[in-house]
Amino acid sequence: ETSVTLYGILDGGIGYQKIEGGDATAKRTGMINGIQSGNRWGVKGSEDLGNGLRAVFQLESGFDLGTGLSAQGTSGPNGEGRLFGRQATLGLAGDSWGQLDLGRQTNIASKYFGAIDPFGLGFNQANVGTTFSSVNTVRYDNMVMYQTPNFSGFQFGVGYSFNTGGGQGWDIDAPGVTNPDDSNNKAITTGLRYANGPIAVALTYDQAKREIDDVTVKQWNIGGAYDFEIVKAHAAFGQTRNGLFSSGISDELRINSFTGVQEGLKVNSYMVGLSAPIGNGKVLASWQMADPRSNPDSFAGDMEKTQIYSLGYTYGLSKRTNLYAIGSYAKNAYFADDAKSTLVGVGVRHQF
Amino acid sequence: ETSVTLYGILDGGIGYQKIEGGDATAKRTGMINGIQSGNRWGVKGSEDLGNGLRAVFQLESGFDLGTGLSAQGTSGPNGEGRLFGRQATLGLAGDSWGQLDLGRQTNIASKYFGAIDPFGLGFNQANVGTTFSSVNTVRYDNMVMYQTPNFSGFQFGVGYSFNTGGGQGWDIDAPGVTNPDDSNNKAITTGLRYANGPIAVALTYDQAKREIDDVTVKQWNIGGAYDFEIVKAHAAFGQTRNGLFSSGISDELRINSFTGVQEGLKVNSYMVGLSAPIGNGKVLASWQMADPRSNPDSFAGDMEKTQIYSLGYTYGLSKRTNLYAIGSYAKNAYFADDAKSTLVGVGVRHQF
Amino acid sequence: ETSVTLYGILDGGIGYQKIEGGDATAKRTGMINGIQSGNRWGVKGSEDLGNGLRAVFQLESGFDLGTGLSAQGTSGPNGEGRLFGRQATLGLAGDSWGQLDLGRQTNIASKYFGAIDPFGLGFNQANVGTTFSSVNTVRYDNMVMYQTPNFSGFQFGVGYSFNTGGGQGWDIDAPGVTNPDDSNNKAITTGLRYANGPIAVALTYDQAKREIDDVTVKQWNIGGAYDFEIVKAHAAFGQTRNGLFSSGISDELRINSFTGVQEGLKVNSYMVGLSAPIGNGKVLASWQMADPRSNPDSFAGDMEKTQIYSLGYTYGLSKRTNLYAIGSYAKNAYFADDAKSTLVGVGVRHQF
Repeated sequence: ETSVTLYGILDGGIGYQKIEGGDATAKRTGMINGIQSGNRWGVKGSEDLGNGLRAVFQLESGFDLGTGLSAQGTSGPNGEGRLFGRQATLGLAGDSWGQLDLGRQTNIASKYFGAIDPFGLGFNQANVGTTFSSVNTVRYDNMVMYQTPNFSGFQFGVGYSFNTGGGQGWDIDAPGVTNPDDSNNKAITTGLRYANGPIAVALTYDQAKREIDDVTVKQWNIGGAYDFEIVKAHAAFGQTRNGLFSSGISDELRINSFTGVQEGLKVNSYMVGLSAPIGNGKVLASWQMADPRSNPDSFAGDMEKTQIYSLGYTYGLSKRTNLYAIGSYAKNAYFADDAKSTLVGVGVRHQF
Repeated sequence: ETSVTLYGILDGGIGYQKIEGGDATAKRTGMINGIQSGNRWGVKGSEDLGNGLRAVFQLESGFDLGTGLSAQGTSGPNGEGRLFGRQATLGLAGDSWGQLDLGRQTNIASKYFGAIDPFGLGFNQANVGTTFSSVNTVRYDNMVMYQTPNFSGFQFGVGYSFNTGGGQGWDIDAPGVTNPDDSNNKAITTGLRYANGPIAVALTYDQAKREIDDVTVKQWNIGGAYDFEIVKAHAAFGQTRNGLFSSGISDELRINSFTGVQEGLKVNSYMVGLSAPIGNGKVLASWQMADPRSNPDSFAGDMEKTQIYSLGYTYGLSKRTNLYAIGSYAKNAYFADDAKSTLVGVGVRHQF
Repeated sequence: ETSVTLYGILDGGIGYQKIEGGDATAKRTGMINGIQSGNRWGVKGSEDLGNGLRAVFQLESGFDLGTGLSAQGTSGPNGEGRLFGRQATLGLAGDSWGQLDLGRQTNIASKYFGAIDPFGLGFNQANVGTTFSSVNTVRYDNMVMYQTPNFSGFQFGVGYSFNTGGGQGWDIDAPGVTNPDDSNNKAITTGLRYANGPIAVALTYDQAKREIDDVTVKQWNIGGAYDFEIVKAHAAFGQTRNGLFSSGISDELRINSFTGVQEGLKVNSYMVGLSAPIGNGKVLASWQMADPRSNPDSFAGDMEKTQIYSLGYTYGLSKRTNLYAIGSYAKNAYFADDAKSTLVGVGVRHQF
């Protein structure tokens, strides 16, 4: 009942990407990786402490299969790498009361929407997180997270991050110090999910304070899936205020001045999709939209409705290894008028 | 008799820290981690070569549980992370003659004072290393270390580092080169310990050349513990010359101009403490003091006696998992007049 | 038939190095590491998918035993470390058709010349790769590699890298963008080897486009070894055009203006060597030369013939652990007139 496991996922393939906007076009053909699932290795374990109590931990490190570089963001203030950038948690778990974790991990929305998205929160821009930013595999540092056990299919979770990115900052009070009182970006993440027979439902709420902008970004989402056996139907709706939880825009490809935080911004997000098993394979499809309902005064220019059409296929070679193909097309990507983003790729994924 | 082991320690909790000095106050409340023991994962192994000879190795990587960032310092000259920042050694060991290691590891003082400190060289500023700098988990790169086997409770060790931090530097002799002949910071670490029944004693000596300052920092320490069964008593005395082996002061919180190296500085260090088992738990307590006996001419301002009062409690949930609580208060921290440093925290530690 | 293995090599010792050129001398004595084999740890696995098909992966991370720093180069654009800098591949393998890998790994020449070099492509400048640059453990990112099974001793392999260093770059077409159309450095690596009884032969060809210089570096090599039982004889010849695949010169020690890429450069490379088992030990010896047959107009100054004389000895303590000694002397190192490079060292290597 006590175990330590070394595990991982590897995912690589060949693909083509194109981004167009205004007079500019960026494209690349070559190796793609981490498309279905981010590349990772990790160590996790559980120790039985008696009386239904367990110590549990998980250390998970992301990397780029094409280059071997660490993933999950920039280095720390002294150039330290983000070794366990995907997860670094230690917790106590009880059969009757649930699990309490300390450390870095994904928010509740990114945990509970995995079953709602036909693409399982993977496949790059096909991920429902592209338009529902709080489910876009958002990770918080310094988080205390509590999740109940599964009660007749229901599970509730709530997390509080003392600082979402980087070590706990000092609140310095001294003559001449003009810093904000506290530079720690605090966040709350919470949600409820229900899974029973053919039904899966998830309801989540997130809010994150961005101290530097003095803005609190908020988002709630509701989603569900129903398995009709021949096909499974998926749908979700969400609403965002004051910015996104993950902008997803690299500086290199920035098309408009949207930076992810924009006071007064209100975005409605929609997704409908389906997934259908065919032999050893599975067809995946979705349409998603992020509709900016108000154009904040603080934003120069118009924000347009982003729409994304995605079609995927996975084929199982074994329980742990599968092939995949993906095609996805976005228009008005990043809310930019007439910006288009296309991804086509094939790959293989292996879990160990 | 041949083995490879994947192991680690995870340690996280919630805490409050406050540092005051002059007109300034810095405080933070939030996730703490690595308080009792630094977070780490590692791989170690041993191969039986016959005739009582073994090949032994240990690779140990430190990290921050709150963020997943690598620990143990800044990156290398090309941005390489310190992957195995805690230890990277390969050695040969013989039943009769001891062990010879090559690589990066802690100095002898930090190995032999573990049993002398009631806090086991952990618990942040409660660590006896805060006032006895050479036992403050000092690590050296490029070290050759020899330790005898245990002879009736006695063990002796000595290490020599060709360069304490970073790759071996070149000694360049060329027209116009004004560099020092050799930029490698060399160090010697040595000690003797005795452990038998209720008695533990350690005697250590360290010296480290700081080429850039052209100063040799020196420290010797003596310490002991005696187990009276109801309580265990702990005491230590040490003397330091020309600076500290680890300043422990982050630039952010620097209160006076003390940088750790100060030619002419002489510091006497004292610790008395006790530890007492109570059921599954253990109470830990110590008072420590670093007393600057001379105020070097090179130092602008006065250096005051640092005193630290610490009280801790650990409670075992199993052999590998425990809870802890810690309270520690320092006055004249970092030798700065009237600077105070307070730490209060609770946490959980798990070893795998 | 399904496995995951944690493995590694540790290699450390004591050595002396000296480099002389013109009026300058650089020397160092101290810990050496990774001399016989680069220090590494890794995880590799294989899953049987049925019908002779397997999923295979290998993640291999290099480090410096003296410091614990990651090896294999600089960090990525956001400071990410090169975690799996030695290898990061996922592939499918079939008993009948061979293996197809995706990711970062060494080129074919560095795989197939291991049996040709008496020093097994290790031992620092004794490595035949010092004068045959395409076999100098060249690693490419974003590579698709195919290798046949062993057919009666023959094996053929070919790899194509979409970008040899770093993530896939975008080809950006926009008003005012003066970048090259495509900044990706593409490379082809291919080779054939034969090993049967006493005979080993390898033939390789590499070409790599350096977009920033707009030059294509090319090299072909042929080599062989024949085991006369008392001694094994080794020989190789190669030819390089327009530059080297790995310059091996650190900026710190640059003696002339040669940077590794030089349009019009033509270099012939030669090696003869021998290896001879003596009891549990093995003597290794080689002479190698890189002869610049043309002095490119683009290069200021003369390029001289580099010659390297190397003598080594390994002594097995077990199948997995050995001691070694190495002495190697190069004249006209880096093609620089009268530059000399000397290495003397002893060490221990352990595989787990």
